[in-house]
Amino acid sequence: MSSSDVVLGPNQYGKAEVRVVRVNRETPVHRLMDLNVSSLLRGDFTDCYRSGDNSRVIATDTQKNTVYAFAKEHGISTPEEFLLLLGRHFTAQDEVSGGRWTAESYPWERIQVPGPEGEPRAHEHSFVKSKQEIRTAALTVQDGVEHLLGGFSDLTVLKTTGSEFSGFPRDRYTTLPETQDRIMATDITARWLFAADPGAQGGAAETDFDAVYATVKQLVLEQFALVHSLSLQQTLYAAGEAVLGAVPEIEDIRFVMPNNHHYVVDLSRFGLENPNEVFQAGDRPYGLMNASVTRRGAPSRPHAWEWLGGFC
Amino acid sequence: MSSSDVVLGPNQYGKAEVRVVRVNRETPVHRLMDLNVSSLLRGDFTDCYRSGDNSRVIATDTQKNTVYAFAKEHGISTPEEFLLLLGRHFTAQDEVSGGRWTAESYPWERIQVPGPEGEPRAHEHSFVKSKQEIRTAALTVQDGVEHLLGGFSDLTVLKTTGSEFSGFPRDRYTTLPETQDRIMATDITARWLFAADPGAQGGAAETDFDAVYATVKQLVLEQFALVHSLSLQQTLYAAGEAVLGAVPEIEDIRFVMPNNHHYVVDLSRFGLENPNEVFQAGDRPYGLMNASVTRRGAPSRPHAWEWLGGFC
Amino acid sequence: MSSSDVVLGPNQYGKAEVRVVRVNRETPVHRLMDLNVSSLLRGDFTDCYRSGDNSRVIATDTQKNTVYAFAKEHGISTPEEFLLLLGRHFTAQDEVSGGRWTAESYPWERIQVPGPEGEPRAHEHSFVKSKQEIRTAALTVQDGVEHLLGGFSDLTVLKTTGSEFSGFPRDRYTTLPETQDRIMATDITARWLFAADPGAQGGAAETDFDAVYATVKQLVLEQFALVHSLSLQQTLYAAGEAVLGAVPEIEDIRFVMPNNHHYVVDLSRFGLENPNEVFQAGDRPYGLMNASVTRRGAPSRPHAWEWLGGFC
Amino acid sequence: MSSSDVVLGPNQYGKAEVRVVRVNRETPVHRLMDLNVSSLLRGDFTDCYRSGDNSRVIATDTQKNTVYAFAKEHGISTPEEFLLLLGRHFTAQDEVSGGRWTAESYPWERIQVPGPEGEPRAHEHSFVKSKQEIRTAALTVQDGVEHLLGGFSDLTVLKTTGSEFSGFPRDRYTTLPETQDRIMATDITARWLFAADPGAQGGAAETDFDAVYATVKQLVLEQFALVHSLSLQQTLYAAGEAVLGAVPEIEDIRFVMPNNHHYVVDLSRFGLENPNEVFQAGDRPYGLMNASVTRRGAPSRPHAWEWLGGFC
Repeated sequence: MSSSDVVLGPNQYGKAEVRVVRVNRETPVHRLMDLNVSSLLRGDFTDCYRSGDNSRVIATDTQKNTVYAFAKEHGISTPEEFLLLLGRHFTAQDEVSGGRWTAESYPWERIQVPGPEGEPRAHEHSFVKSKQEIRTAALTVQDGVEHLLGGFSDLTVLKTTGSEFSGFPRDRYTTLPETQDRIMATDITARWLFAADPGAQGGAAETDFDAVYATVKQLVLEQFALVHSLSLQQTLYAAGEAVLGAVPEIEDIRFVMPNNHHYVVDLSRFGLENPNEVFQAGDRPYGLMNASVTRRGAPSRPHAWEWLGGFC
Repeated sequence: MSSSDVVLGPNQYGKAEVRVVRVNRETPVHRLMDLNVSSLLRGDFTDCYRSGDNSRVIATDTQKNTVYAFAKEHGISTPEEFLLLLGRHFTAQDEVSGGRWTAESYPWERIQVPGPEGEPRAHEHSFVKSKQEIRTAALTVQDGVEHLLGGFSDLTVLKTTGSEFSGFPRDRYTTLPETQDRIMATDITARWLFAADPGAQGGAAETDFDAVYATVKQLVLEQFALVHSLSLQQTLYAAGEAVLGAVPEIEDIRFVMPNNHHYVVDLSRFGLENPNEVFQAGDRPYGLMNASVTRRGAPSRPHAWEWLGGFC
Repeated sequence: MSSSDVVLGPNQYGKAEVRVVRVNRETPVHRLMDLNVSSLLRGDFTDCYRSGDNSRVIATDTQKNTVYAFAKEHGISTPEEFLLLLGRHFTAQDEVSGGRWTAESYPWERIQVPGPEGEPRAHEHSFVKSKQEIRTAALTVQDGVEHLLGGFSDLTVLKTTGSEFSGFPRDRYTTLPETQDRIMATDITARWLFAADPGAQGGAAETDFDAVYATVKQLVLEQFALVHSLSLQQTLYAAGEAVLGAVPEIEDIRFVMPNNHHYVVDLSRFGLENPNEVFQAGDRPYGLMNASVTRRGAPSRPHAWEWLGGFC
Repeated sequence: MSSSDVVLGPNQYGKAEVRVVRVNRETPVHRLMDLNVSSLLRGDFTDCYRSGDNSRVIATDTQKNTVYAFAKEHGISTPEEFLLLLGRHFTAQDEVSGGRWTAESYPWERIQVPGPEGEPRAHEHSFVKSKQEIRTAALTVQDGVEHLLGGFSDLTVLKTTGSEFSGFPRDRYTTLPETQDRIMATDITARWLFAADPGAQGGAAETDFDAVYATVKQLVLEQFALVHSLSLQQTLYAAGEAVLGAVPEIEDIRFVMPNNHHYVVDLSRFGLENPNEVFQAGDRPYGLMNASVTRRGAPSRPHAWEWLGGFC
């Protein structure tokens, strides 16, 4: 086989997990943004791969430096806007035709301290990390089009009742009993795609990303709590439908949701009843669901989602 | 060498990480306890080690079953009280002279949903996991004495100013500049030892463990926020002093606190100033501090602390 | 907005991380397969998502049971063949139009013990886990076509010289010096796509998957060692080219490779030289490269790769 | 309560997880040491804790610098010897009365490449990480005495037969059946204490630490394979006895060993037998054993072991 029978396929490269903390000290009440930013460039890098010619390869170290310099020059208002700044900067360069910029953003809350009358007040410059979930954002630029995703990962929820699972097919390998009352628990990871066209349904240019984030998180939590669930799928769909109904800027929302099984422990062996009071929380295996809920007629935009897991 | 020249040294065995979720369904407002319990027994198990005679070895599976059965029979009011129940049960058996029982307890909050007038109300049976920190407890029984520890792990805090570090010795290998203004950040892990004698300063028997927990957490957060810090050591000590001052049931409190370094990024290379606004959050190495703050004259109780890291 | 304006998009569901250990005890020399299997089904599950109708939803518990039953009934010869069995079983059912089946396979070696003359011999039934890398496999069935991937993850390599990086573009944010001698280190994750047509270039039906695995791993290690590297990209491409040259059954190979930076420590501050002898191994950030090397003219088969990271 | 009622208890501080890679380039056949070093100092640091007086606090940054400078000045022959160098350097300083120095050492193997005749040869400067286990070392200096531990962590082993568990006590909460044939699997973590007196039984000063390491690892693997096990305890003890019998420099060896349960899957529900062929590998809970095997009459040296888990 000659080497001409082999070609470079899809590829991207860059710097991953640039940990940038930006403090706004304009007033004594400091503000804090804590991000983990990755920058991956796309373009014609064939010569580098085939012969080690780096003349078009913007160093990953340069990408890292740019993140830090931009944090100073432009500040970080929201993860989404910071990624848009980075993406437009890099794609303005000759060597770059597109890319993927992602961020995790870690929420911090102000520490409550006693005020002058003993009442709690938020401290000016001291914070405790929330950890309830991680906010995420991802910008893809491909073929000159920007695709922007908001999101969060690992928002862990559990309901102790109000969940059933029955009516499923039974074959030789089916042993699961039907249940009208179980614990339902999951770690919700979601990403939502912002509409490309700012006219029709709002759009990235005029979007209040923090407000969207707060709305989506609250609606997802509410639907998890309020829907009497016949399956985790149904809850997922209800959450997606609620988000699309309330946030016109979003045209598609996708979820990754494990089913964190809680097994009723058989206490009859010890002469005890267990009416859904004592559970073993399982580790593996777990159910897993990937699904998207989308606005009817929304354009297909696969580039927004490709390659998020590492393989092109 | 004959085998009689070798002897069994300190040892314990049991079942680790029994994941038990206990739901209290007595009213429509469910309550949820979510624990990770370990049980390690001590006694004379020489024959098992030397010849495989298991006649005194309470199976680790039995220990697991006991955790689940006790969760039903006694409920789980607090992690500390649940461990006391387990420890007293096992040490009442002939084969067992002592042991170590530990628990992690995962905090959950009720999901807020809209009430009848749209105002937020706490849902009856739907929860979101807090993750801000993990509550811990550890009971050791050795030589007939109970040693009880409360605690938490990985409460992550950061202050953007109000922290200095200077005046330290300089030798050939010292390059760190002195600073009057830096980010200080840490993940606070703490364990506190409850006084053995319920008379003098309160004691486990009459202790409100949830109230102690809330008080310690709040005081530690407050001291982190309010102390103008000349070193992380000083902040640690102030936190310990505040706890001992406010909670008479505690006679000793110990901390493991990394110093999560945040490095000021040198932006002068890009013609930019960086007056403590843009930081790189470091991973490794990190500073590390282990220290205890103790009531003067408190009895030495090393058994409370030994073996918490696995090696006897 | 009416609910008819919202539709279910791409979706799959199933059971993840079924940990199955299969022992072949046909002779006193036991054989061991240790797998972590996931099964995700695709089909028309709209009614479940929209109304909780589970009549077409093969329970994830049934999928788990099937994995265990098949391990007994068919044995596990290779990860690839086991996934083909599972995929064909599930897609033969009315409710299922396609899916994704994946496995991690953990390598174990026999423990060496002294033989009759003191020489080492491999023990019949005692094993030590290798951990050098994890073998992976992934089968996708979509639109009636099977796409089969072999692979491995996290094969960690390092060379102490024979690596350069220079000639890259410099802009305002570039500070990285050029280097003719550096440590190059990475964790190689690779997946390779088996040709669909067994005729032309071999094909899954007649493939010796274990032999392919051993060949790919050895070639990737060799290229890493032998190529004098002008960039990590060049090394990646050489590895891909070697694999495609040697293994006709493979039509595409894709890599995820971080650049695990090792920083030369500045010892001049202590009056010491450091000619590439003392390095700080960095954690974050790290370089990151995703790229595929493919046979010219191979058909585009995006379904093989989509969704491997969780988002469709 | 006045602040004089509170005192500083046991404490240590320093820099954790200094990642140092040392390349020996004296010949074209490079040698590689890859360590993760922590340095924790003990002394009278009361003024720092109570008032932020850092005049005796050797900066943790200085400790890090010393690790890197020593790697150049002295090289790294073995983890144990490198820690002895560090410990003696720091305890020679006025501010330091003792401390704890620890290291993880990551094994690398040379990549095999084809030699001139196609036979495999070890490459001069290219390595693949082994990951089978991590080598560890820990030096404690307390009250002027050095305590030195060698060790390894997470050597994962499994035997498919040759393991029983029966004859254990049964109470109300016992449901485990007795078994004469089961999988036994564990992750072996071990630490061994070198004799203090080089005269009687060998001693640190004249010890070949690499040879000891290889011997202990091989003996532990052999005993795991060869002992027909009536309990994991028995296997642990046999391993300790073999080590003490073969290595006179070691006076005590301690193990942390989980019992990684493998559950026989009930296939009778599918009309299948399962004579120990198909297992579910469990995650949690797991059995856990901590035990030491020691030379009769060896002096008690608790300082060697204290505080290894973080709490004093």
